[in-house]
Amino acid sequence: MLIIGEKLNSTIPEVQEAIRVKDKKYIQDLARKQVEAGAEMLDVNTAMVENEADNMEWLVLTIQDVVNVPLCIDSTNPDAIRKALQVHQGKAMINSISLEKQRLDGILPLVLEYGCSVVALTMDEQGIPDTSEERIRIAEQLVEIAVKNNLNLDDVYIDPLVLPLAVNSRNAVTFFESLAEIKRRFKVQTISGLSNVSYSLPKRRLINRYFLAVCMSLGLDAAILDPLDKKLMTAVVTTNLLLNRDPMCRKYLQAYRAGTLEE
Amino acid sequence: MLIIGEKLNSTIPEVQEAIRVKDKKYIQDLARKQVEAGAEMLDVNTAMVENEADNMEWLVLTIQDVVNVPLCIDSTNPDAIRKALQVHQGKAMINSISLEKQRLDGILPLVLEYGCSVVALTMDEQGIPDTSEERIRIAEQLVEIAVKNNLNLDDVYIDPLVLPLAVNSRNAVTFFESLAEIKRRFKVQTISGLSNVSYSLPKRRLINRYFLAVCMSLGLDAAILDPLDKKLMTAVVTTNLLLNRDPMCRKYLQAYRAGTLEE
Repeated sequence: MLIIGEKLNSTIPEVQEAIRVKDKKYIQDLARKQVEAGAEMLDVNTAMVENEADNMEWLVLTIQDVVNVPLCIDSTNPDAIRKALQVHQGKAMINSISLEKQRLDGILPLVLEYGCSVVALTMDEQGIPDTSEERIRIAEQLVEIAVKNNLNLDDVYIDPLVLPLAVNSRNAVTFFESLAEIKRRFKVQTISGLSNVSYSLPKRRLINRYFLAVCMSLGLDAAILDPLDKKLMTAVVTTNLLLNRDPMCRKYLQAYRAGTLEE
Repeated sequence: MLIIGEKLNSTIPEVQEAIRVKDKKYIQDLARKQVEAGAEMLDVNTAMVENEADNMEWLVLTIQDVVNVPLCIDSTNPDAIRKALQVHQGKAMINSISLEKQRLDGILPLVLEYGCSVVALTMDEQGIPDTSEERIRIAEQLVEIAVKNNLNLDDVYIDPLVLPLAVNSRNAVTFFESLAEIKRRFKVQTISGLSNVSYSLPKRRLINRYFLAVCMSLGLDAAILDPLDKKLMTAVVTTNLLLNRDPMCRKYLQAYRAGTLEE
């Protein structure tokens, strides 16, 4: 499973401030720490700062100056995405398109022009459907659009969009059903963030990590998560062990010996 | 999911000694503690002590003197099982039958005579099959035997028998595949112990609890586990929340407020 570090996001007040004042050291430290903790890609977002596009360009340059990983450009603004892609080294991911026409028309051309991978959300002009059936229907349409545009489906990461359990106790199950069926029916990748599911509940990290374990068992291909959460990263190592993704238990034992398995 | 406490087992040296010297207080305390921690049934085993049958009778009487839960009679010895059932109050579970002829012939009549539920292992005279296909084939034969003998399938708990990951990295996946397919094809219950999967690996409890979370997401109906392991019981509460088995997040919030959610 591809681990995408979520910390370089302008919705986090300290990060927002660091972007605003161009605190290179803060940003670069946070990039390095996430990669050292196991992130293979870093999500970057400057939407909460004035001048999203110029800040995105600065953020991409600042991060890739110190870490050698691709970035997940988290924006709905085509100008910000283009500025990021113009300076990005390697193959970027764009986060995200959906069936919303304006978003699709603004961002899909950039995915094609720059040969990016892309996150595709199962939502349309009407928002996020309640049922897994409707989300799967949207996934199908997103897959059709990808195929029609000659996108390689290995580069399309469908996000079935988990909503908070505190709002509806069925929300995680709706997500699990959508994920399982999308994996079964389409030859695409799948992706999720972890924090929505636990929104407004106590001990959110506990919920997030068992949510991730169940998602992994259903074949989730990528997760946007906090790689500095040691118990969460332990959940990844342990679930990989259970799912036969760790031959001879090598990574599990390695993590144990390195002292990074945190119960 | 039915939680069966595993602690009253003569393979545990302290318990073995308590049975041998008839230490009522030790046994009753351990019974009470498990029930208070959430066990709805208690597994009882006296196989490692001389005179299994008489000790089993004593153990059943001693436990049911202080807790009002049914017991899971863990023995391959028909005499010990009969002695247990003669004094047991409520509906007992027998652990276990399999396709091994001697075991089946010795124990199935007791299941029928006393109207018990029963654990049925997916193994035969040749031992435990390597593949999920073969385990499912044995499960099918066990279901046929149950039906032929007018056993209610709600009372039959198939155990697809997880083997240690340290022996073969595929062992948990073989179990998951068997479990999912047995749930899909047959209207039986399913059950598992948790400790085999992590045998000889470090931080076994960590592995056990993510194993349980994945099993629960596949529909496991009962687990024989250590209810005194707080992080494991937290995994149960959290996974129930994720699987829409906790309307309005009530039990999760209750556990949080009671301070029993242990990260």
